[in-house]
Amino acid sequence: MKQTVIIVAGGSGMRMGGDLPKQFLNICGRPVLFYTFETFMGYNAEIEFVLVLPESHIPLWAGLVSKHDFGVPHKVVAGGRTRFHSVKNGLAAIGNEGLVAIHDGVRPFVSVDTIERTFAAADLSGAAIPVLPVIESLRYSFHNETYPIDRGNMFSVQTPQVFNKALIKQAYEMSFSESFTDDATVVEKFGHAVELVEGNRENIKITTPFDIIVAEALVASGVE
Amino acid sequence: MKQTVIIVAGGSGMRMGGDLPKQFLNICGRPVLFYTFETFMGYNAEIEFVLVLPESHIPLWAGLVSKHDFGVPHKVVAGGRTRFHSVKNGLAAIGNEGLVAIHDGVRPFVSVDTIERTFAAADLSGAAIPVLPVIESLRYSFHNETYPIDRGNMFSVQTPQVFNKALIKQAYEMSFSESFTDDATVVEKFGHAVELVEGNRENIKITTPFDIIVAEALVASGVE
Repeated sequence: MKQTVIIVAGGSGMRMGGDLPKQFLNICGRPVLFYTFETFMGYNAEIEFVLVLPESHIPLWAGLVSKHDFGVPHKVVAGGRTRFHSVKNGLAAIGNEGLVAIHDGVRPFVSVDTIERTFAAADLSGAAIPVLPVIESLRYSFHNETYPIDRGNMFSVQTPQVFNKALIKQAYEMSFSESFTDDATVVEKFGHAVELVEGNRENIKITTPFDIIVAEALVASGVE
Repeated sequence: MKQTVIIVAGGSGMRMGGDLPKQFLNICGRPVLFYTFETFMGYNAEIEFVLVLPESHIPLWAGLVSKHDFGVPHKVVAGGRTRFHSVKNGLAAIGNEGLVAIHDGVRPFVSVDTIERTFAAADLSGAAIPVLPVIESLRYSFHNETYPIDRGNMFSVQTPQVFNKALIKQAYEMSFSESFTDDATVVEKFGHAVELVEGNRENIKITTPFDIIVAEALVASGVE
């Protein structure tokens, strides 16, 4: 069955403080997004790629592809007002057969094992996401009071989030809600349960200069 | 006023999979704990150090201090059955005047700014802890169902947790409870509010081989 990955790279990169959106920042001289593509190639060299970028960044991406001679075939789709709208645009560009992974462009270090586990679970259940137990103590702050949170059953959520294509496309026909923090919440609101599988610790979201230091160390250590 | 830091290094290191407890693992050739001591020296060269170790690891530590000629003066105290009991033993070794920081031995990259902010806040309020907003989506798993959690007001908790010495010593006279996940929860149960200040992203807990890779990169990049 045909597998697709929609790589969502809609961020404006404001948190990094530089001029470049963070998905274009370099790890060891190459844009973060290249590593993300290559990880999915390592899982399935035949996988179909859709890259969702803010419309204004599409020429910048084309320039990088050409400059670095980046050879992975992919379709580029313009994003929307929010992540929800960007994913919806990506879904409009794919067919209805098989599974689709929706993945954060700034998570280049997802392991092939994590991708495999998530696809395998979604193949049976229709919807699966990788998670890891929360390691640090958590605290909730509300109206000037703070409360400790039991982290015992708490998980941090990663991507790729993998779904039956027909299911996720139908779910994204719903109206946008602020409660849609990721694709799993959209599918759940639509009425379909989401299965949790184990993620991997290296699967960090690159959002700060600290993360770039970590990313370069991971590439140097061969995690790529 | 006299400042003290109790460095709690009670972990058995099982998660790392090696023979050495993780607080003794090397970052760029030197034990994690040395970096932790040196960070606090950078904040206040006169600070009093108490190191809490499992009794069985005290000879190993003495060997490392001697082998590396580690010169920071400190008192070593044997830990107890749980983290609560270890901290309690540490508190029994200090006076009642001024403030005490309680810090995880495996957090060598707390910044001097974070230490300063936490001491400054505790000096006014009696109890302060460093936190950071949670970056990843969270999900709660319960009885085979899972629920998305609003991370908007959720913070991950770091150390040092800094307290008025008399207050924390009294709080630790209470009976142990499984709900004591850190020192802040003990002080709150005792009836004293805990103030939140901003932590720093590099202040990671070194618990896996992945964290050692990150730690070596941080030292190489001059974060130490």
